[in-house]
Amino acid sequence: MKQLNIGIIGAGRIGKVHMQSITYNVPGARVLGITDVFKDGLQELADKYGIEKVYEDYREMLADKDIDAVLVCSSTDTHADISIEAARAGKHVFCEKPVDLTPEKVKAVIEAVEKAGVKLQVGFNRRFDHNFAHVRSLINDGKVGNLELIKITSRDPEPPSAEYAAVSGGMFLDMTIHDFDMARFLAGCDVTEVYVNATCLVDPAIGEAGDVDTAIINLKFENGALGVIDNSRRAAYGYDQRIEVFGSLGAAMAANDTPTNVTVMNADGVTTDKPLYFFLERYMQSFRDEMIQFVDAVQNDKPTPTTGLDGLNSILVALAAKKSVAEGRAVKISEIG
Amino acid sequence: MKQLNIGIIGAGRIGKVHMQSITYNVPGARVLGITDVFKDGLQELADKYGIEKVYEDYREMLADKDIDAVLVCSSTDTHADISIEAARAGKHVFCEKPVDLTPEKVKAVIEAVEKAGVKLQVGFNRRFDHNFAHVRSLINDGKVGNLELIKITSRDPEPPSAEYAAVSGGMFLDMTIHDFDMARFLAGCDVTEVYVNATCLVDPAIGEAGDVDTAIINLKFENGALGVIDNSRRAAYGYDQRIEVFGSLGAAMAANDTPTNVTVMNADGVTTDKPLYFFLERYMQSFRDEMIQFVDAVQNDKPTPTTGLDGLNSILVALAAKKSVAEGRAVKISEIG
Amino acid sequence: MKQLNIGIIGAGRIGKVHMQSITYNVPGARVLGITDVFKDGLQELADKYGIEKVYEDYREMLADKDIDAVLVCSSTDTHADISIEAARAGKHVFCEKPVDLTPEKVKAVIEAVEKAGVKLQVGFNRRFDHNFAHVRSLINDGKVGNLELIKITSRDPEPPSAEYAAVSGGMFLDMTIHDFDMARFLAGCDVTEVYVNATCLVDPAIGEAGDVDTAIINLKFENGALGVIDNSRRAAYGYDQRIEVFGSLGAAMAANDTPTNVTVMNADGVTTDKPLYFFLERYMQSFRDEMIQFVDAVQNDKPTPTTGLDGLNSILVALAAKKSVAEGRAVKISEIG
Amino acid sequence: MKQLNIGIIGAGRIGKVHMQSITYNVPGARVLGITDVFKDGLQELADKYGIEKVYEDYREMLADKDIDAVLVCSSTDTHADISIEAARAGKHVFCEKPVDLTPEKVKAVIEAVEKAGVKLQVGFNRRFDHNFAHVRSLINDGKVGNLELIKITSRDPEPPSAEYAAVSGGMFLDMTIHDFDMARFLAGCDVTEVYVNATCLVDPAIGEAGDVDTAIINLKFENGALGVIDNSRRAAYGYDQRIEVFGSLGAAMAANDTPTNVTVMNADGVTTDKPLYFFLERYMQSFRDEMIQFVDAVQNDKPTPTTGLDGLNSILVALAAKKSVAEGRAVKISEIG
Repeated sequence: MKQLNIGIIGAGRIGKVHMQSITYNVPGARVLGITDVFKDGLQELADKYGIEKVYEDYREMLADKDIDAVLVCSSTDTHADISIEAARAGKHVFCEKPVDLTPEKVKAVIEAVEKAGVKLQVGFNRRFDHNFAHVRSLINDGKVGNLELIKITSRDPEPPSAEYAAVSGGMFLDMTIHDFDMARFLAGCDVTEVYVNATCLVDPAIGEAGDVDTAIINLKFENGALGVIDNSRRAAYGYDQRIEVFGSLGAAMAANDTPTNVTVMNADGVTTDKPLYFFLERYMQSFRDEMIQFVDAVQNDKPTPTTGLDGLNSILVALAAKKSVAEGRAVKISEIG
Repeated sequence: MKQLNIGIIGAGRIGKVHMQSITYNVPGARVLGITDVFKDGLQELADKYGIEKVYEDYREMLADKDIDAVLVCSSTDTHADISIEAARAGKHVFCEKPVDLTPEKVKAVIEAVEKAGVKLQVGFNRRFDHNFAHVRSLINDGKVGNLELIKITSRDPEPPSAEYAAVSGGMFLDMTIHDFDMARFLAGCDVTEVYVNATCLVDPAIGEAGDVDTAIINLKFENGALGVIDNSRRAAYGYDQRIEVFGSLGAAMAANDTPTNVTVMNADGVTTDKPLYFFLERYMQSFRDEMIQFVDAVQNDKPTPTTGLDGLNSILVALAAKKSVAEGRAVKISEIG
Repeated sequence: MKQLNIGIIGAGRIGKVHMQSITYNVPGARVLGITDVFKDGLQELADKYGIEKVYEDYREMLADKDIDAVLVCSSTDTHADISIEAARAGKHVFCEKPVDLTPEKVKAVIEAVEKAGVKLQVGFNRRFDHNFAHVRSLINDGKVGNLELIKITSRDPEPPSAEYAAVSGGMFLDMTIHDFDMARFLAGCDVTEVYVNATCLVDPAIGEAGDVDTAIINLKFENGALGVIDNSRRAAYGYDQRIEVFGSLGAAMAANDTPTNVTVMNADGVTTDKPLYFFLERYMQSFRDEMIQFVDAVQNDKPTPTTGLDGLNSILVALAAKKSVAEGRAVKISEIG
Repeated sequence: MKQLNIGIIGAGRIGKVHMQSITYNVPGARVLGITDVFKDGLQELADKYGIEKVYEDYREMLADKDIDAVLVCSSTDTHADISIEAARAGKHVFCEKPVDLTPEKVKAVIEAVEKAGVKLQVGFNRRFDHNFAHVRSLINDGKVGNLELIKITSRDPEPPSAEYAAVSGGMFLDMTIHDFDMARFLAGCDVTEVYVNATCLVDPAIGEAGDVDTAIINLKFENGALGVIDNSRRAAYGYDQRIEVFGSLGAAMAANDTPTNVTVMNADGVTTDKPLYFFLERYMQSFRDEMIQFVDAVQNDKPTPTTGLDGLNSILVALAAKKSVAEGRAVKISEIG
């Protein structure tokens, strides 16, 4: 089978992750070219990974007939427009999350890819995490019985800068969006209602900017199960990513990943490793596996594992969460969009 | 110091627990007499524990000048009235939880003991549990920093009978009442607002009786921290009693107690013990320790560790939780009573 | 059934443990009297536990017709003689370990109890420990298959004083004796050969006194399985008591007991409790349960769970271990005694 | 810096592992060519990894001026001769373990590389394992204090075939050789004496071939510490690879790696993953990291992390272990070779 030629738009942190994964760990694909609005170091990056082409801008990339698929790794506000242009140019699209902060533009992306007959995958990488994917498979295999409760703990090691927080759309659209997708993934159905119990305890600047940094988010699912996410923008011990599902036959829990399985016992206590601190370390395996599946979906004309609808529905939940905070009440997803 | 002579009113499950603890493990006290509306086996019980007196009814016990203190272990609907009578008879009172299902009667008990100048302790035994007390001491010692989040998992192994559920006042007053007290204990302050996300997934009969059996209960505390309790009336793997507190400097988590620390590794997996199944096993140490503290409070004229106000405030939270379910909104504690 | 009247000879640390257990936690028995060569505080002790009689010496106790059984908790060098006298006086005997440091005297005790037709139980309390007893039951139930390997980790929190070490008979007879019995208990058969790899790393004074404080002890069992014990006289993190058994179908491992199941996560790491530090805390449940079984054996004329032969055979292994160190070779048990 | 051109001799299981690592995960190097005595599928393998050359035999590879270094991944009996020829041809040598089953030939390899002035690294990959390397760093950092005891548990999931066992040199040279190197690595010094307590419990065919399959191996180290390895050729629950070091300030323990950190709790118990079953999964990270270090040593003219002397000394310990079994006594390393 012909190797898939991928173009990466945006050579920031996540763009580099995909360059590395595709170059070294994704069979059947290569990065043919890259582009970024920041030109500094771009050629060096291309050299490092043996990437042939550095485009002046993404439009040049989209015009390149040799490009089969693009990864949209640019800033969030450009995701939707670039994805639509890429679809119109006949390129398969992998779009980082969130697709956009408004449902309207996400819908426009979905329409564009449908019309163009290209694939669209949204970067909800955590579905491919070894722990979380295993929990989902246990649910699928009936090991927890009828699903009753989903609990997600998701705490970042450090709060974002005030500037970043300001343009990120707020915690729910920036950080919790992953947890909303995880909740939907584990539940196997959509969320119907959200209630948020939130406050600002980590950084007053976040509160002054109108956002929250500590939250308990309640979900109701279509299948009757309940969900709860607890978020904090700062955990002194590092990146805390755990889930627990509970059903009629039992429960399954995913603990944090750690650098080693070493325990130290001394006069001070019995100590083990803190969780992997940085999301790129914690989720590297999942970034690789989502890319393998994207390439497989394109090459073998399969459905992508995370669709435009996943991108849309998670944003609807995030917007309902924002509304819940603003109005101090439970908000139905049907009220949004 | 003179040994404290205790009378136990109600020789059911919990009354027997206290008989055993006091007889074998509580220095400075003995069970002088017992009484119960059910006479069957009462004398045998007295013989087993070397208890001198079996009273015809609790009034006879209250009239006995040799009795210094009584434990009110009768049915919930009689707790308040008996406690009031006991206080008026000059006896110190240990009252099982809940003191009553209405705030008015709890207040009446508090007034009666204050007027009589006797001690009142309410049976929130879990505060004395080795795990939970240790978490509280870590908070007190500043080990988690500024408290931001309290999470309590509390799942019973099996749902109650429909009959029991009917008279219990509902899940919040019967089961969650312990978790409300634990939340207040860990937070070190009162709850100000409750929102409940609840449903009936375990037993339809419970739903038909107007109750819930699966719930996520959101709390706001006076100190600005948030809380969340998840409850189920049935856990296939047994009695699940965990807590997690999270603050600016880190987190502390209490796992379940198990019969042994043995791990079995074979072709099927790596298996450890299920949690201690029965609450009397799980919490035996805490039942003993609450009694030691009650005897100490009486003998040395100290404040009791769990007061009438603790009994009252937990009930207010429970009633707010019921109201939240009924009205589908967050309820402030100030709206109750 | 008539309550068993027990006399305790020796009111030191372990004698007090049994006083407490019997008084509070052993149904069907009471401590009728105590005696000790040290008279200080003896009457106060009797008062504390409601013990009727304080004897001038153990002979007075043995002459008391009301005494049914005695616990020999005096110094090790008197164990055998007192046990023999007690048997001749028709008393059932519970003798602390080791029965004696010489096989000859242990045999004399066995003969004396057999001749007198009284029960003899030796204080190998660890067989009754919840973790270790569970591992044995897993073996019995075939859960590990054909037994191939037994590993025992046994490390004391602190080395004994030089004076104590001098009269204790050396590490193997004083400390490892428990592990030898545990090995025999887990194997379900006797040891046939010992090889010791030992040295002195903890306290030079121990080495100067001709003893070792750090050892790896190799065992061969009658059933073909192999065993290994690792001992240290000092563990910075506390009392380390673990076992692992391995067989054709899998393995079972007993971890340490801890005061709580609380985990603390902060910038320094993820920390849990150190093992219970003091052997009386760690093994309190086993001291109680061995006493329950002793009373049951006497009251219901059953075999005692740890016999004179257990006492004898463990000492033979300990002596073989000493010989192995002295001669730098594997020593067969048949070479001893 | 010029990319290092590597040739791989032997395209079996371990040869393929290195092909994959170098191609995808080792910066600064590429596999220029491969060769094997079995020609089937060799060209397909080269195509898969984009390898330019497939040599007729290893001599052709050694004659290729473009080859900078070779990996000797052929059958054990050819390791030494090929390594010597490679050194003479001026190629740096990475040689899989064991270098040879006789000390003489290992010494000849060491001499050859010294004379040729090329690098030699021996494939003791486990030193690079994240868990074990971390334990070593804890020792180096003084976290366990003065080292007193090293315990290694090393159990294979399944016994080898009788044919393989016959040519492997026996369990000590084939399997325990890794553990001997690990012991030396952790101790930071050489072994001085070995005593083996071994038997055949897994497969009678192994015993009939004169080998053992179950062993407790005792070590004495130059620094006075003691060591013990327990080996089995079969563990029902999979590949069991744990270590524990113990010193004056505490202990460090490395547990097994598992596919996930998921726990399942149901009516049958609380279950977690079995260890990673296959050594290629378990040690993939270490195979990659040893290669990164080999390339680094060659490119930057640094000492290799595992030397010919490591290869030699581990074999001396293995031969001492064999002698100990044969003669039933402790054997000093100085008696060997």
